[in-house]
Amino acid sequence: MTDRKETLALSIRAQEEKIKQLKTNNAESTEVDAEIAVLKGLKQELDALNGGKKKGKAGKNAFTLKTAKGTKDHNDKEMAIREKVFSTITKVFKKHGAVTIDTPVFELKEILAGKYGEDSKLIYDLADQGGEECSLRYDLTVPFARFLAMNGKEYQNFKRYHIAKVYRRDQPAMTKGRMREFYQCDFDIAGTYDSMIADSEILKILTEALDNLDVGQYTVKINHRKILDGIFEVCGVPEEKIRPISSAVDKLDKSPWEDVKKEMTEEKGLPEDVADKIGEYVKLKGGRDLLDKLKADEVLSKNASAAKGLEEMTTLFDYLDIFDITQKMSFDMSLARGLDYYTGIIYEAVTEKSAPPALADGEKPKPKSKKNDSDELDESTVGVGSIAAGGRYDNLVGMFSGVNKKGQPNLQIPCVGVSIGVERVFSILMSKQKAEDIKSNETEVYVISVGDGLLKERMEIANELWKNDIKASFMFKNKPKLDKQWSACEKEHIPFAVIIGRDELDKGEIRVKDMRSKDESQKGGVTVQRSNMVQELKDRLTQL
Amino acid sequence: MTDRKETLALSIRAQEEKIKQLKTNNAESTEVDAEIAVLKGLKQELDALNGGKKKGKAGKNAFTLKTAKGTKDHNDKEMAIREKVFSTITKVFKKHGAVTIDTPVFELKEILAGKYGEDSKLIYDLADQGGEECSLRYDLTVPFARFLAMNGKEYQNFKRYHIAKVYRRDQPAMTKGRMREFYQCDFDIAGTYDSMIADSEILKILTEALDNLDVGQYTVKINHRKILDGIFEVCGVPEEKIRPISSAVDKLDKSPWEDVKKEMTEEKGLPEDVADKIGEYVKLKGGRDLLDKLKADEVLSKNASAAKGLEEMTTLFDYLDIFDITQKMSFDMSLARGLDYYTGIIYEAVTEKSAPPALADGEKPKPKSKKNDSDELDESTVGVGSIAAGGRYDNLVGMFSGVNKKGQPNLQIPCVGVSIGVERVFSILMSKQKAEDIKSNETEVYVISVGDGLLKERMEIANELWKNDIKASFMFKNKPKLDKQWSACEKEHIPFAVIIGRDELDKGEIRVKDMRSKDESQKGGVTVQRSNMVQELKDRLTQL
Repeated sequence: MTDRKETLALSIRAQEEKIKQLKTNNAESTEVDAEIAVLKGLKQELDALNGGKKKGKAGKNAFTLKTAKGTKDHNDKEMAIREKVFSTITKVFKKHGAVTIDTPVFELKEILAGKYGEDSKLIYDLADQGGEECSLRYDLTVPFARFLAMNGKEYQNFKRYHIAKVYRRDQPAMTKGRMREFYQCDFDIAGTYDSMIADSEILKILTEALDNLDVGQYTVKINHRKILDGIFEVCGVPEEKIRPISSAVDKLDKSPWEDVKKEMTEEKGLPEDVADKIGEYVKLKGGRDLLDKLKADEVLSKNASAAKGLEEMTTLFDYLDIFDITQKMSFDMSLARGLDYYTGIIYEAVTEKSAPPALADGEKPKPKSKKNDSDELDESTVGVGSIAAGGRYDNLVGMFSGVNKKGQPNLQIPCVGVSIGVERVFSILMSKQKAEDIKSNETEVYVISVGDGLLKERMEIANELWKNDIKASFMFKNKPKLDKQWSACEKEHIPFAVIIGRDELDKGEIRVKDMRSKDESQKGGVTVQRSNMVQELKDRLTQL
Repeated sequence: MTDRKETLALSIRAQEEKIKQLKTNNAESTEVDAEIAVLKGLKQELDALNGGKKKGKAGKNAFTLKTAKGTKDHNDKEMAIREKVFSTITKVFKKHGAVTIDTPVFELKEILAGKYGEDSKLIYDLADQGGEECSLRYDLTVPFARFLAMNGKEYQNFKRYHIAKVYRRDQPAMTKGRMREFYQCDFDIAGTYDSMIADSEILKILTEALDNLDVGQYTVKINHRKILDGIFEVCGVPEEKIRPISSAVDKLDKSPWEDVKKEMTEEKGLPEDVADKIGEYVKLKGGRDLLDKLKADEVLSKNASAAKGLEEMTTLFDYLDIFDITQKMSFDMSLARGLDYYTGIIYEAVTEKSAPPALADGEKPKPKSKKNDSDELDESTVGVGSIAAGGRYDNLVGMFSGVNKKGQPNLQIPCVGVSIGVERVFSILMSKQKAEDIKSNETEVYVISVGDGLLKERMEIANELWKNDIKASFMFKNKPKLDKQWSACEKEHIPFAVIIGRDELDKGEIRVKDMRSKDESQKGGVTVQRSNMVQELKDRLTQL
């Protein structure tokens, strides 16, 4: 390969990485397009040097060097952010007594069948290579319900979290960060308890997690399916239309009332006066004041479903007060949530960062896509919509346990849970810093030699540091250049260097340098007795 | 469901769990068979009560409630052990400056094609649902090489670990713990460095990991491919037979020399005198003494490949001495490793627990299965063979980078790595303790009420503990029974209880009880001022 070709190949890789980063960070499309144009130019030049043709399948690269569509590698910098997010969230979960379980990445096809409505077409199947038919998991909730149904009563008191990848054969929208492989982060409490206690702890956990994640200001919208159903009933919605109308209401966060009303009346055949009555209710939001207002509503409070919901919400507010999180909640009658299986309270956390952009006067917002209607929380997208969501689902486990002669489930375990949109959290956190500023290793000390290599001496010192649980590295060269050692230490953001030279070693001395110090007098580090090295470093590291 | 049926169903579940545990722990097959007989009896009784028939597909359970063949759920107890193993290993990796990357669970089919020889038939393919053909990853090494080839020179100095699941459509041997979905734990150092420095640090890391994992005594067998190739050459093995003969040698840990010799001569057509010469070499093992002996071998030391290998081994021993791990190594000429791609030192760690059972006189050992010949480390099985393995592979990345006009790889990144058989480690650690003794949660304090419920007071106290980063739980009941609260606290192995009663609360007091204390005078706990509760607990927790 000529030098120019090599340079071009490297530039193309760098340019591709740059474009990928821009897309991940939701850059303006004009900016992305400009960078793509640069990339094309580089590729054309390389093609020309290669004789004007790209290598085909039979060419010198026998295969395409890429990851599958909708998937990507996460490099060390991205993983450092991911691991920080996971450990922050996991710490909160564990503080509340949670344990984790692990389920296989694929399930029998029939376990997933019929659980996701028309989204079932997005399920990845494994090829038929003989034996059972299997599919990649689509979410973590169905495997959890399957686990509970299989493991019966021993898991009736169970706080479990599960952070793992799920798979959807969706059209990837990489610019929005929507992937075919992405992480979900679920926390659920399973078991039969007294009203709203577990529900309030879930909300407490959600607020603690978001507070610790540094994602900015957020609001947790809450509502109750039973209140919503009661409203639909008293307004005169026929039973079979309750779920479709509920799903229309769910669009109110993105669409104006006129559009939602049109969907109710024109698409779903609701009389206009019924829609208008609903409109009066669903525009309400507030806190305990709204609860009092609804309880004072003579029509609504006489509806059995609404009365039950209002009673539970009253209990919930009492508990939210004790947990000191009422101020983070917004009792929002327009929150309906897509998924059919919710049976009690529902909630959705929205951050400023993830809120839809404000609309200019007269600008028409895009309607929520059909897909989102039935999607619990579209964690496959980032930068838009909610950052966490969930609710109570008391009947899902029963779907897996089979029914007895009376037609009742053999085993019913009520559940309440929340899913944190970790892909969005990553995206928010990644956009806050430059990749090169992220320290992906945890190395604390770099062992540097001045003069003639001193490899064995550097190894001895590293070994002593490791023995004392200090994270240390050195350059894998017999005679490394000093500037190369400095720049490795800087590039890897290692806070301290131990500098050794022959003369000083003979005197039983080494030097310790704080790499972050701007103090010119400390440029060469400070001299430390070799025998005090470990203690000196430990003292400095505890001050970090 | 009648009571008897319910009891039976529960007993069946418990029995199935028991059998699963026995198998996981490699119990005697007679013991397992006895428990299976019990299970059959229970099932027959239940069938009889159900009218003598099992429910079919069209029956009341519309689907089979199980995980796919060769996969299993890992419950909270198992996950607690797994997470401990992962964090122990990860800590060692990070101490040595490692970072992690994440690659997708599936790759383009062509990336995996042609990398695993005849084991390629074990690769899981995704169904053809339009678009690209994809396969589940078979190991973590090929995706790593693909990542390096794609990301070019920026990752030429790279210590990376990756702990993730891989997939093999193998015949599952659940009794041996061989699964179709299992974890691999890889650590590799990629980059062009001076001889044996990275190699020696990999061995240092391996010993630190095994020392910290509490898997018992172990030995790391080491050898060098270039020495082995030199031996084959000087003994007169034709070049095209070197790899097949090497793979025969690799069986010496399980088979006696006579069987291996037979394979060399009868199966692989080597003249008997050549095999005998090899036999003299490969039975050698030792330390630096063996190295000196081989260097003094006039025939061998004149062979270019052997000379290079001996020189590198000499350097390696120097570095192992510095890292103080020579005593854990056994320079073993019979270690050959199956995989073709190794180009330098190779190693394999064997623990007492994972060593093959001693043979009775005259008893014939089972030959190593064909499969194992080409398998780097059969991490899919536990309880037999090695617990970690690896080596240097300098040419693998080049397979992905394409070749230039001269037929050389566009990018070549030398690598050295080790794979720790974490499934075996889990198995060893799980067999050391009873499931019920494992604490899967991290809860430190259980808040208990005496008397009339005091739910809100328990919530307030839990909230105060959480605020102070103390891991706390309470029972989700308005008026929980005292004995139920005690037993939850005990079952979850929670070390401390905070006990509250109305009278004491009114006096500003609570009681703290150390649940592990056998001291009868401490039975009811000690009285503590409510305002001192957090400090009192923190003091006690730091003493744990």
